[in-house]
Amino acid sequence: MKIYTKSGDEGDTHLIGKKVKKSNERVEAYGTVDELNSLIGVTLTSIPDGCEDMKEDLQKIQHELFDLGADLANVTTRENYYIQNEFTIYLENRIDYYWEEAPPLEQFILPGGHTAAAYLHQCRTVARRAERRIVDISEEVQTPAEAIVYMNRLSDYFFAAARAVNVRTDLEDIPYRSNRK
Amino acid sequence: MKIYTKSGDEGDTHLIGKKVKKSNERVEAYGTVDELNSLIGVTLTSIPDGCEDMKEDLQKIQHELFDLGADLANVTTRENYYIQNEFTIYLENRIDYYWEEAPPLEQFILPGGHTAAAYLHQCRTVARRAERRIVDISEEVQTPAEAIVYMNRLSDYFFAAARAVNVRTDLEDIPYRSNRK
Amino acid sequence: MKIYTKSGDEGDTHLIGKKVKKSNERVEAYGTVDELNSLIGVTLTSIPDGCEDMKEDLQKIQHELFDLGADLANVTTRENYYIQNEFTIYLENRIDYYWEEAPPLEQFILPGGHTAAAYLHQCRTVARRAERRIVDISEEVQTPAEAIVYMNRLSDYFFAAARAVNVRTDLEDIPYRSNRK
Ligand code: B12
Ligand code: B12
Ligand code: B12
Ligand SMILES: C[C@H]1O[C@@H](n2cnc3c(N)ncnc32)[C@H](O)[C@@H]1O
Ligand SMILES: C[C@H]1O[C@@H](n2cnc3c(N)ncnc32)[C@H](O)[C@@H]1O
Ligand SMILES: C[C@H]1O[C@@H](n2cnc3c(N)ncnc32)[C@H](O)[C@@H]1O
Ligand SMILES: [Mg+2]
Ligand SMILES: [Mg+2]
Ligand SMILES: [Mg+2]
Repeated sequence: MKIYTKSGDEGDTHLIGKKVKKSNERVEAYGTVDELNSLIGVTLTSIPDGCEDMKEDLQKIQHELFDLGADLANVTTRENYYIQNEFTIYLENRIDYYWEEAPPLEQFILPGGHTAAAYLHQCRTVARRAERRIVDISEEVQTPAEAIVYMNRLSDYFFAAARAVNVRTDLEDIPYRSNRK
Repeated sequence: MKIYTKSGDEGDTHLIGKKVKKSNERVEAYGTVDELNSLIGVTLTSIPDGCEDMKEDLQKIQHELFDLGADLANVTTRENYYIQNEFTIYLENRIDYYWEEAPPLEQFILPGGHTAAAYLHQCRTVARRAERRIVDISEEVQTPAEAIVYMNRLSDYFFAAARAVNVRTDLEDIPYRSNRK
Repeated sequence: MKIYTKSGDEGDTHLIGKKVKKSNERVEAYGTVDELNSLIGVTLTSIPDGCEDMKEDLQKIQHELFDLGADLANVTTRENYYIQNEFTIYLENRIDYYWEEAPPLEQFILPGGHTAAAYLHQCRTVARRAERRIVDISEEVQTPAEAIVYMNRLSDYFFAAARAVNVRTDLEDIPYRSNRK
């Protein structure tokens, strides 16, 4: 079977259970989740030695984002969603674990440092964009409540992981200082 | 002539033939095409040896995206668009060509692998975002029908190309497995 | 204090002075500024030797984007914004400075070349996306007029800087040529 089916050539496409315009807000939501997933793929190419734990996390998250995508694409009324509260609990444990490695924080930090840290910050901001797109649809169509909780935690995961990479590679985060006189 | 004309400092700008707000949906559409074009520029820096064919494709596509951008910016009624059906046909041939190199697929794959493959997946998702922005305007203003067809095929091109890079660099794509118990 | 406060788990969040939905347009605007900031972090990892001047610029800009973010998040009526006209003037000086290094231009150029140049083009397009999101809100809520001026100039800064990187690393920008017959 060819990968290009041409069925989308008039601007329509398929959810699981319904034909819609490609400008449909559900398509926007899981399309943004897909964008985040691909950015994690880029990030994975930059994770340094000594961060094998993080590589495993990121791959686990990639699978979970497909689970989430399937839930967001599904318009048939149902309760047995793919996304599970356990995914969130796992993230929380990992946040605590990485957070302990870095010094306490009372200011914003400039996103960057090691290449992997820089990409993790970019993941953080794209995760937040995806979260906004999920919040957009959550008031209008049936979506798993866990989706927003998971995405909220995921951006904090990326923040904690970015800081841990810089600590482990001996790079210091630069605190933001206001230019205000 | 200076590059900064300051003419956009109040939030207005120019299409070809009309003054509009920068929040205009056409500006959103070609601005997103421009974002994709710049990501292809990043991708080009990572294409490995043995993929010279792909480098040529990507540069050809960069030119075509400017052609597309000019069509999307043009509000004067016309039929002689820059974008041509031949661009799409070329993409289809290249999809077939790369697709043959990779094993058949019956599941989603985690975006990633070689750095170039990872970027190509990111291009794929940004191309789909650009497609959504073109669909947004296509119902309201005159746009070439070929624009949506081309963008639809372009995201499949990136998918096929990403897989070919991983095959050629001996990296295996990881199939998605649902976490559902 | 834990970084994850869970207060956003129902899709709400806080501006400075007000509780809003995460889909609020102000959140979209500073969230996109944050996305740009993180991309500058990525770009900084690729700046070649001989461009220390640009590294300093980019870090200065990162601080300024937090200043801008604070202004966009602030709903309390006020006039003493963080963002200052001097930030724009600095950018204009730097544009002139980099612009002189590159040959005059009368066509579009393909975004790319050196990795840093490619990322700077990506910054350019994401800055323009952020500009559009700021224009979106500027008609409805009180925002500093300087915000749009600054963002308008910032995308020209990235364009000039990208060209300077390619000149300094002996890479020629490829001019766009229309495919039109
Ligand atoms: C929603 C959706 C998406 C979403 C979200 C999916 C998610 N879970 O996150 C996103 C945006 C990620 C997506 C992307 C793509 N998709 Co899609 N997608 C769908 C859709 C509508 C539902 C799939 C789903 O989530 N099912 C729920 C899952 C979890 O249950 P499942 O039944 O086990 O689903 C499996 C099969 O659908 C399947 N599969 C079967 N055959 C093939 C063949 C190919 C080539 C692929 C990639 C997958 C695939 O993979 C799923 C899980 O492993 C289907 C059409 C449909 N109504 O079924 C198309 C569909 C599977 N997608 C398709 C395509 C082409 C793609 C892309 C290659 C498009 C592109 N150019 O980017 C990418 C591939 C991404 C990747 N990394 O592999 C085609 C496959 C055509 C074919 N048989 O060759 C389909 C059938 C749509 C169509 N008719 O054109 N997709
Ligand atoms: C639509 C548009 C865009 C779009 C889409 C264009 C597309 N085809 O995809 C996008 C978003 C890509 C874009 C980007 C930019 N643009 Co523009 N764009 C336009 C606009 C409105 C139409 C151009 C067009 O597509 N014409 C159709 C083409 C195909 O036909 P053409 O007549 O042969 O067009 C050529 C000239 O316009 C030209 N050109 C002539 N002089 C100059 C000077 C410079 C510095 C550049 C970059 C191009 C340029 O390049 C075109 C093709 O080679 C013009 C204003 C206008 N109304 O003409 C501005 C305009 C050409 N853009 C301008 C600028 C500054 C830029 C950016 C540098 C902005 C930025 N900071 O990102 C970038 C450069 C991108 C690049 N890679 O080179 C300025 C150039 C000012 C100058 N003379 O120095 C113009 C004149 C607008 C203005 N008054 O400020 N642009
Ligand atoms: C707007 C805002 C943002 C915006 C824009 C900010 C900007 N200036 O560009 C953006 C989107 C960038 C942002 C990002 C983040 N934010 Co924020 N943000 C806010 C908010 C609403 C206002 C902050 C502000 O701009 N104040 C104006 C500044 C300039 O004045 P200030 O009083 O001196 O502000 C300082 C403190 O707020 C502070 N700070 C104090 N304690 C902590 C702790 C942490 C962990 C951090 C990161 C910052 C921080 O940093 C500011 C400047 O240095 C506050 C909540 C509130 N209402 O105060 C949350 C808040 C500071 N953010 C928070 C968090 C968690 C984050 C992120 C880690 C979220 C994420 N996962 O991405 C990132 C970190 C980004 C980074 N690089 O460091 C939390 C901190 C919780 C804590 N005490 O541990 C807060 C308190 C919100 C909350 N209740 O959850 N944020
Ligand atoms: C740290 C701050 O970031 C903002 N915030 C919370 N969620 C998002 C999101 N998805 N996107 C952008 N900004 C967000 C809120 O203002 C919060 O207080
Ligand atoms: C593979 C699946 O991706 C979805 N799809 C089709 N076009 C787009 C797009 N531009 N952006 C995001 N998702 C899209 C449809 O649901 C299709 O079936
Ligand atoms: C160079 C051309 O880019 C367009 N333009 C101006 N500002 C933006 C923006 N924020 N985003 C996308 N396109 C923009 C206008 O059409 C201008 O003429
Ligand atoms: Mg949060
Ligand atoms: Mg398609
Ligand atoms: Mg401008």
